[in-house]
Amino acid sequence: MTTSIFPSYPPSLTPEQLSYLLTASTDWSLSHGLTVRPPPSFVAENPNGALATHAPTTLFPSPFPRSCWNEAREVQKLFNELYAKISADEEWLGKITEELAEVDEFMARLYKVHLDVKKEGFVQDLSLGLFRSDYMIHVDPSSATSPPVIHQVEFNTVASSFGGLSTLVSELHRHLLRVGAYPQTGHPIKEENIPVSPAAQGVASGLAAAHKAYGSGGEGRKTAVLFITQPDERNVFDQRWLEYNLSEKHDIQTYRISLREVPTLTTLDPVTRALIYHPPHAPGVLVEISTVYFRAGYGPGDYPSELEWASRTTLERSKAIKCPSVITQLAGTKKVQQVLVTEGVVERFITDPKLAQRIRGTFAAIHPLDNSPAGLAAREIALNSPEKYVLKPQREGGGNNIYRSKIPDFLRSIPESHWSVYILMELIEPPNLENIIARNGETMIGGVIGELGVYGAVLWRDGEGEQRGKGVRTIISNEESGWLLRTKGMDSEEGGVAAGFGSVDAVLLVD
Amino acid sequence: MTTSIFPSYPPSLTPEQLSYLLTASTDWSLSHGLTVRPPPSFVAENPNGALATHAPTTLFPSPFPRSCWNEAREVQKLFNELYAKISADEEWLGKITEELAEVDEFMARLYKVHLDVKKEGFVQDLSLGLFRSDYMIHVDPSSATSPPVIHQVEFNTVASSFGGLSTLVSELHRHLLRVGAYPQTGHPIKEENIPVSPAAQGVASGLAAAHKAYGSGGEGRKTAVLFITQPDERNVFDQRWLEYNLSEKHDIQTYRISLREVPTLTTLDPVTRALIYHPPHAPGVLVEISTVYFRAGYGPGDYPSELEWASRTTLERSKAIKCPSVITQLAGTKKVQQVLVTEGVVERFITDPKLAQRIRGTFAAIHPLDNSPAGLAAREIALNSPEKYVLKPQREGGGNNIYRSKIPDFLRSIPESHWSVYILMELIEPPNLENIIARNGETMIGGVIGELGVYGAVLWRDGEGEQRGKGVRTIISNEESGWLLRTKGMDSEEGGVAAGFGSVDAVLLVD
Repeated sequence: MTTSIFPSYPPSLTPEQLSYLLTASTDWSLSHGLTVRPPPSFVAENPNGALATHAPTTLFPSPFPRSCWNEAREVQKLFNELYAKISADEEWLGKITEELAEVDEFMARLYKVHLDVKKEGFVQDLSLGLFRSDYMIHVDPSSATSPPVIHQVEFNTVASSFGGLSTLVSELHRHLLRVGAYPQTGHPIKEENIPVSPAAQGVASGLAAAHKAYGSGGEGRKTAVLFITQPDERNVFDQRWLEYNLSEKHDIQTYRISLREVPTLTTLDPVTRALIYHPPHAPGVLVEISTVYFRAGYGPGDYPSELEWASRTTLERSKAIKCPSVITQLAGTKKVQQVLVTEGVVERFITDPKLAQRIRGTFAAIHPLDNSPAGLAAREIALNSPEKYVLKPQREGGGNNIYRSKIPDFLRSIPESHWSVYILMELIEPPNLENIIARNGETMIGGVIGELGVYGAVLWRDGEGEQRGKGVRTIISNEESGWLLRTKGMDSEEGGVAAGFGSVDAVLLVD
Repeated sequence: MTTSIFPSYPPSLTPEQLSYLLTASTDWSLSHGLTVRPPPSFVAENPNGALATHAPTTLFPSPFPRSCWNEAREVQKLFNELYAKISADEEWLGKITEELAEVDEFMARLYKVHLDVKKEGFVQDLSLGLFRSDYMIHVDPSSATSPPVIHQVEFNTVASSFGGLSTLVSELHRHLLRVGAYPQTGHPIKEENIPVSPAAQGVASGLAAAHKAYGSGGEGRKTAVLFITQPDERNVFDQRWLEYNLSEKHDIQTYRISLREVPTLTTLDPVTRALIYHPPHAPGVLVEISTVYFRAGYGPGDYPSELEWASRTTLERSKAIKCPSVITQLAGTKKVQQVLVTEGVVERFITDPKLAQRIRGTFAAIHPLDNSPAGLAAREIALNSPEKYVLKPQREGGGNNIYRSKIPDFLRSIPESHWSVYILMELIEPPNLENIIARNGETMIGGVIGELGVYGAVLWRDGEGEQRGKGVRTIISNEESGWLLRTKGMDSEEGGVAAGFGSVDAVLLVD
């Protein structure tokens, strides 16, 4: 946070204006499914999930440079292609994953699932990626005249959330403007500068493309998409919007089960390995799963016992299209993101130098902390001049980032052999911005940081049998699928909107 | 409850089926604004209204004879016309109201507001009625072959609620069918037999017609519709859907205030008596109110002090179109409903005998308990053979109905001079029906009674000055505006969905 490139924002409010705005926002959210299950700290009991509260949102859309928004969206299809190709390049990805597996038990276990299934042979050569590439705006603190640019924070290849709610929050801010809940004057908010994110439809369309490509079920069975969800998911409405889109726009049936339920509710066809779902509410009915969509399984907490690992293996073995497959999930580690920064690596996958440069233009500097020459140089920086850096674990899911001056003490507190679990990333310097976040019916005003996530949907065909993992054969569809702005208070240094002080937000484009 | 004219209903469910159905219903409701604020018995605190729960609904649409549904809808425009004409016939309505005022303090006070304003002279000759005519199905218990008919339960001329939620509940049941939350076989539910009620749009269109007819504001002021609401309204989302429809489909601004806030937030233009609203969140802005829509003020509980009566008088004096005016509110008493049963009375207003007969075809027998010959005869029935009757107070708003054998003791417990506050109504004998009601996340299964409410919107011009109350001059618009099925458990003998064990329901048309 160094520079202000935006006008004074948000507009100042009298207590009456804030009250009116909060009520208008809350009621609209509760009417339109911009909702989450309330956290236990807010409501101790929620019998049968009968209570909802508004999702944490900003009360105003956050100013965002139009050029940055355009660039992030335009580069998404290249990133889709890049990560599809990474997933299908086992020679390259396998090596990185093996290194990672040595220091990260979770990655090792995931990779073992992949290798076990590979030994048996995959029966599905289609893969679906529903990705989200997350960016922050970076303003060079040493050059007041440089235009703002985007720097990629991370690339999510599994369980990218908030697509459903993202569409709604842009509609919320447009509504608040239309009904006069924003002050009449003194702000730059115009409806045409709050584009509605098509993410709910876009992400659902990605699932629909895979479902369609799967084809008919065997033995006359109906087909459906299976959502793998966490047992006590509070962000359930975000997921439901994908289901409602699939049902209404694509006439596709969906079901939701947890990893724990896989052994009791599914079987594999002994011949085709088709994944058969047995709905407990429809005894005797056999449903063939075209696509398994993981909204769980991305972190070790989702595998409390061997049962969940067995479930993941069953799903990976099955004929269903996985979103994502284990190997695609492994393509999304921060280690991969870090290696991509090295010269020539993007170019291995995206051979057109101009296009590769387009991707590189979004990278912040990332350094390994391993025993390579680059890693040893980075260790020097981490221990002696860490002020512009953040230390991040390779693993997904947030948590445990170490910032600036806290880095040296942290590194000294763990064995040096574990340092390579972390990467050192140049901190992004976002412009100064304030906004109001509404959460559990309360408001907080103050400095915020926004993170733009752009969704992408890509369906590709890998090689079959022995050719598996030797490159993408065909990219069947490749789409940019909308965006999300997640905005969090400056005091909280972690994302994650449903927990903590984050919120969903819409972009207010500024030129 | 005597006869079963329906197939066995609802389909029987395993615990797994019920659980799946409840979850699918709850999540859809919480995603689509089929919501209410939770009652304090469910959630003790609701900071800034941040929590919502699903509205009480049936889990299945209730079978309803198509002929009855058709008849109720077709007769609505005649009822709209009838009640517009009753409102504009002060000679006739005044006499009835005066009689009622002698025994009912609330009616007397309301009527005084009307008379006071009349003395000064009305400045607005347009009136808007948003009515709801409520019916039950009656099956003659002594004749198994008679077709089911509708009998009117009451006619609401003020604050007819649930138009917003009604549209959603028919969509909910269609969704539950589409996603397989109903058993695959063994029930008669088909999507084409669950018509979507257009009530949310229909009621909003009625308000929009009045707003448009009002014309421009004076001195360049913007115009808006003002909702008069109860301070702690739990059924707020039902009302919000009308506001969202007005904003999105008609580009009309709305505001919400309570009767208590009228003196501090509104003024009357000293020359034109235009009602000027001063939004506390937009200091200095003057908004001219085209239409005052009462969702409060229908019962004595809404007037805890003289302040609220002064507010009602201010609104009645104003140039804004009232929905309803005081006199239209008074046209909706049960006393009027009872007098209409008398031969020749409907015909005073609807002169075509065929059309008058169409209206009469929906009437159940209603008797006064006054000193008229008919009243004295009814007293005999009430005291000696009350088994087919219900005793109802003239006043609106439900509560205190006395059924069957409890009538004689009740009458003997109050002074005979008060008997004329009540009417004696032939009980309607609805067909046997069961359904499942979901409320606060819990389900109840059992015998239910449904009440079909048909909405109507009528805008008319009364005479000006001395001609006021001497008949409708022009009916400007007259529409049937959708319907609502309210279904309640048999144990509860009162309606009112937001409180008690009632629920909103959709019709499943059966032939």
